[in-house]
Amino acid sequence: MRLKNKPWANELVEEHPESALDRPDPAEKIDWEARFGNDKPIEIEVGSGKGQFITTLAKQHPDRNFVAMEIQKTAAGIILKKKLDEGLDNLQILCADAANLVAYFGENSTSKIYLNFSDPWPKSRHEKRRLTYKDFLAKYQAVLTGDGLIEFKTDNSGLFAYSVKSMNNYGMHFDFMSVDLHHESEEIVEKNVETEYEHKFASKGQPIYCLHAGFLAK
Amino acid sequence: MRLKNKPWANELVEEHPESALDRPDPAEKIDWEARFGNDKPIEIEVGSGKGQFITTLAKQHPDRNFVAMEIQKTAAGIILKKKLDEGLDNLQILCADAANLVAYFGENSTSKIYLNFSDPWPKSRHEKRRLTYKDFLAKYQAVLTGDGLIEFKTDNSGLFAYSVKSMNNYGMHFDFMSVDLHHESEEIVEKNVETEYEHKFASKGQPIYCLHAGFLAK
Repeated sequence: MRLKNKPWANELVEEHPESALDRPDPAEKIDWEARFGNDKPIEIEVGSGKGQFITTLAKQHPDRNFVAMEIQKTAAGIILKKKLDEGLDNLQILCADAANLVAYFGENSTSKIYLNFSDPWPKSRHEKRRLTYKDFLAKYQAVLTGDGLIEFKTDNSGLFAYSVKSMNNYGMHFDFMSVDLHHESEEIVEKNVETEYEHKFASKGQPIYCLHAGFLAK
Repeated sequence: MRLKNKPWANELVEEHPESALDRPDPAEKIDWEARFGNDKPIEIEVGSGKGQFITTLAKQHPDRNFVAMEIQKTAAGIILKKKLDEGLDNLQILCADAANLVAYFGENSTSKIYLNFSDPWPKSRHEKRRLTYKDFLAKYQAVLTGDGLIEFKTDNSGLFAYSVKSMNNYGMHFDFMSVDLHHESEEIVEKNVETEYEHKFASKGQPIYCLHAGFLAK
């Protein structure tokens, strides 16, 4: 969702180039190893919003690297503030367009891609903008490791059906699926990290749909 | 669901061998061409219950052949009564176990298989009994024509997620999917033929899940 412009957030991004990259030139390779100080695989959230999901995950897993990819600079600044406040050294912010994913990340560099409550773009003439359209799947395939996974969640039934069909027709294998994530077993519910949007909608009793899928071949 | 035994229904099945086959010997081929009086492809509903779905379909499409496969003899008798009352010459009843599907139908004999509100068998130790378990998918693949489809509906979220995963991982392609069938476009809702079970659950506002899937290769 579109946020109101917050000058402090925009300025914060500009003041912290070591933690947040502001629309970097896709022609120049990003040295993630140097930025994180290690060469562990990266987990990317595409469209992080205000960052509740990715900052929680980064806090829970200090041994893994996370990138919050978020095109809105104000949202990127809000995530950055959380990162700085909580000292999350394993989280980087990339304020950029998901369409440039392959330019920003190397082949086999990424072990997970999280797609949470992406814009459904319900009109068929906007199909190509949906983050589970086949052209995006090809980009995820390029950067993911062989056993890498896409973890997709949405409250939008139309986007869910579209995405399941799109990933099926692309030839992906399905590891986990739920059409009512918040009413699965206790183990699954406890492990689930909520986004701010998810928390709001699930508390109204609306079902949350989820799919974990990987590519059969690189 | 299990029905109370109705002697009249059981007797009706025995009195009408031309319309209903009662647990035929899987070793003997059934001559569907002779039974229907034509060689058109067949559409099978596996587990027809009291037959609201399949009798409605048979009435709507007098140019197609339908087989109601139902293991409970009382239920088979109830379907048979509807068939006789409404003069549905294009409907045959097969009171038999779905596990024997390949013995009862020839290769490429079937253009559609309907699985409606099948028993979810929620315990993992009963997985093999679910009608979307891979061994059943292999049987459907054997009898379906190359462009044949499985049309699956359920109100059970666990069985739906299981079935989508099972069909995807078997290598099937998905033609249509909905996680809220009764709130799709008017065109889709109007075309949908309800089962008695579906009518009851959908009228309580519970979502109906649906998947149409086919096999990529024979």
